[in-house]
Amino acid sequence: MTRRLKVSRRSHVPPFAVMEVLAEANRLRDAGASVLNLCAGEPATGASDVVRRRAIEVLESGDVGYTEALGVPALRREIAAHYGRWYDLEVDPARIAVTTGSSGGFLLAFLAAFDVGDRVALARPGYPAYKNILSALGCEVVELDCGPDSRYQPTVSHLMEAYYGGGLDGLVLASPANPTGTMIRPDELAAVATWCADHDVRLISDEIYHGIVYDDAATSRPAPPGHARGGSPTAARYVPDGAVVVSSFSKFWAMTGWRLGWLVLPDELVGPVGALAGNVALSPPALAQHAGVAAFTSDGYLAAEENVARYAASRELVLSRLDDLGWTRVAPADGAFYVYADVSGDGMDSVTWCARLLAEAGVALTPGTDFDAVHGRDWVRLSFAAAPTTVADAVERIVAWRRTLTP
Amino acid sequence: MTRRLKVSRRSHVPPFAVMEVLAEANRLRDAGASVLNLCAGEPATGASDVVRRRAIEVLESGDVGYTEALGVPALRREIAAHYGRWYDLEVDPARIAVTTGSSGGFLLAFLAAFDVGDRVALARPGYPAYKNILSALGCEVVELDCGPDSRYQPTVSHLMEAYYGGGLDGLVLASPANPTGTMIRPDELAAVATWCADHDVRLISDEIYHGIVYDDAATSRPAPPGHARGGSPTAARYVPDGAVVVSSFSKFWAMTGWRLGWLVLPDELVGPVGALAGNVALSPPALAQHAGVAAFTSDGYLAAEENVARYAASRELVLSRLDDLGWTRVAPADGAFYVYADVSGDGMDSVTWCARLLAEAGVALTPGTDFDAVHGRDWVRLSFAAAPTTVADAVERIVAWRRTLTP
Repeated sequence: MTRRLKVSRRSHVPPFAVMEVLAEANRLRDAGASVLNLCAGEPATGASDVVRRRAIEVLESGDVGYTEALGVPALRREIAAHYGRWYDLEVDPARIAVTTGSSGGFLLAFLAAFDVGDRVALARPGYPAYKNILSALGCEVVELDCGPDSRYQPTVSHLMEAYYGGGLDGLVLASPANPTGTMIRPDELAAVATWCADHDVRLISDEIYHGIVYDDAATSRPAPPGHARGGSPTAARYVPDGAVVVSSFSKFWAMTGWRLGWLVLPDELVGPVGALAGNVALSPPALAQHAGVAAFTSDGYLAAEENVARYAASRELVLSRLDDLGWTRVAPADGAFYVYADVSGDGMDSVTWCARLLAEAGVALTPGTDFDAVHGRDWVRLSFAAAPTTVADAVERIVAWRRTLTP
Repeated sequence: MTRRLKVSRRSHVPPFAVMEVLAEANRLRDAGASVLNLCAGEPATGASDVVRRRAIEVLESGDVGYTEALGVPALRREIAAHYGRWYDLEVDPARIAVTTGSSGGFLLAFLAAFDVGDRVALARPGYPAYKNILSALGCEVVELDCGPDSRYQPTVSHLMEAYYGGGLDGLVLASPANPTGTMIRPDELAAVATWCADHDVRLISDEIYHGIVYDDAATSRPAPPGHARGGSPTAARYVPDGAVVVSSFSKFWAMTGWRLGWLVLPDELVGPVGALAGNVALSPPALAQHAGVAAFTSDGYLAAEENVARYAASRELVLSRLDDLGWTRVAPADGAFYVYADVSGDGMDSVTWCARLLAEAGVALTPGTDFDAVHGRDWVRLSFAAAPTTVADAVERIVAWRRTLTP
């Protein structure tokens, strides 16, 4: 039988250009080439020893079953306490929903807040999965063309344009952002949050890169005592009632493969998210939840802060070579582990630029087209979450490779 | 600020009656009462030693990061090989998508196969999450009123009624089913599958209880050599091109908290599911995937088959006491670990019946209302996945409690 049944329209997700880059990188590596991967938004270190040891202890004493749909109480309490430690905020553990990574958190937040046909705004450039999840759920995505004037972050004027151009039900805001690494200024965030509250627009605040913020970032404020680098207070204080905060163990705590994240929910969404979670996911991964409690020990924070110190050194190194890289237009790398740079001066679109850099110098970066369908052909994203020596070698290779380009 | 933003209509998921039962069971237990829980569809044993040991080995040697969106190649190969072992079927590993439990599998299958407004049929009584996920995704659920004549399974005549009553885009079929435990007869399955193929209706075949099938089940066929109890071939042979098979490590392998499942996809859905999975979930839990490979070793199968032998003994025990239980109308318990029984003869609706049984005898069952909004007030579900002594004690308590009821 060769007849094929319908494939849904909503599954027509645009492919990621980085997938081509990764496939070619793997091919080259398998063929014996030395390839440096600066594509992935994934910490090189992995989970800390204290988290892995906790998981081993759990496994040695038996197995773990389904948990509560919103997560085990001990982890919800630790996450709530984390808001006290980092932001001096009192958060009721009942408002915490543990999720299967921030991916699972976005899915639940979008389902609970938005119906089919609702219009949700987000910054362009931005993380493509927001758009793709929203579209798959039947929401209409409203891209805000965010540029250097607002650190590539949404402003009230962007929102008003979207609002009066067809209505608006939600806003996804990420600070620090992917791919730019930029943070929204506190006064801008307050203005955006107030505007959202005044216009019945649900704010979804992506804070998965919180704790990965650099001391010289213009938007950063003093870190809490005992957390020299991690945990600069950023958005949380300013998030108004009604906003949903999305966060994750994947970035600051480097626990990507564990698939663990959380939501901080306004009261009215706790019940709906709990009901949806029980149906859509049953419960987040149990072992990750039990081990994740150890992320909030001093050893857990310390290991994460050591990672951030490594990112800071790699970031310094990249930023000190911008002239040699020829990157005159770069988004302010306030946080996360990305440098987003305009490479259009090299006379190629970014997909070609990345393909040639990989083929000719063995360095894999991500073309901006994955984050911005309009201007992305001018931009590339470099992730410095890889090991510092990898980042350093890659920068040297890019500098040397650019010298080979005919002007 | 006390104003509340909109909560989505699609998050108005009906609450599960079992949640009330569980909360009350926990309250009683905390107060010192002896409570026997026969609510949960969760094996008492947990993952086998060989799986837990594999996970410990992985954790001792480092950490694991994001994996391929469709799962690590080694696990996809093992799952494909499993179809050879159990069903003598050759399945290309490229058609296997590893998922975050069968919950994650249903989500991806529904998204890839159905658009907003599509009509998808399923049996009533049935697992409520199917309905709730489909509704959350904007699909229209068409309940098929399935009764004892067809072992509570859909028939072609059910499908024709739905098809001519408004069109039909999909069918979810579960065999063995939850809550009834019934299996569809091979000839009926072939007829249903053929009808679906002829009418462009996408069949989603839930096979999460495969391997948990009892020798005396009328629909069962000889188990493959070396797998005396687990793995009776059931639906797989009959599933036509175009169908999506959903399965899980949670039931046969007792790995509930690990959140690991899989899909067997028709060719045309491999790309769409991969693209959706990368956006919606990034990847399934990595440690579970690496450990899950060990489920397919002889020790892994053996431990699972020992669990099935325990279920078989518990099932025998319950079925041998049907007269004493007063359960004259019981769905044929062909597989899974449930007995679905009509308790309307006791003169109470099932929610009251379950509440009184818990309060007066300390036994927690699930009211049928969670599975069937029309007839569920007459039925209860008993899960014999608990430890055999728990099941035996619970049966004695139910029998004794019923004697106290005034006729």
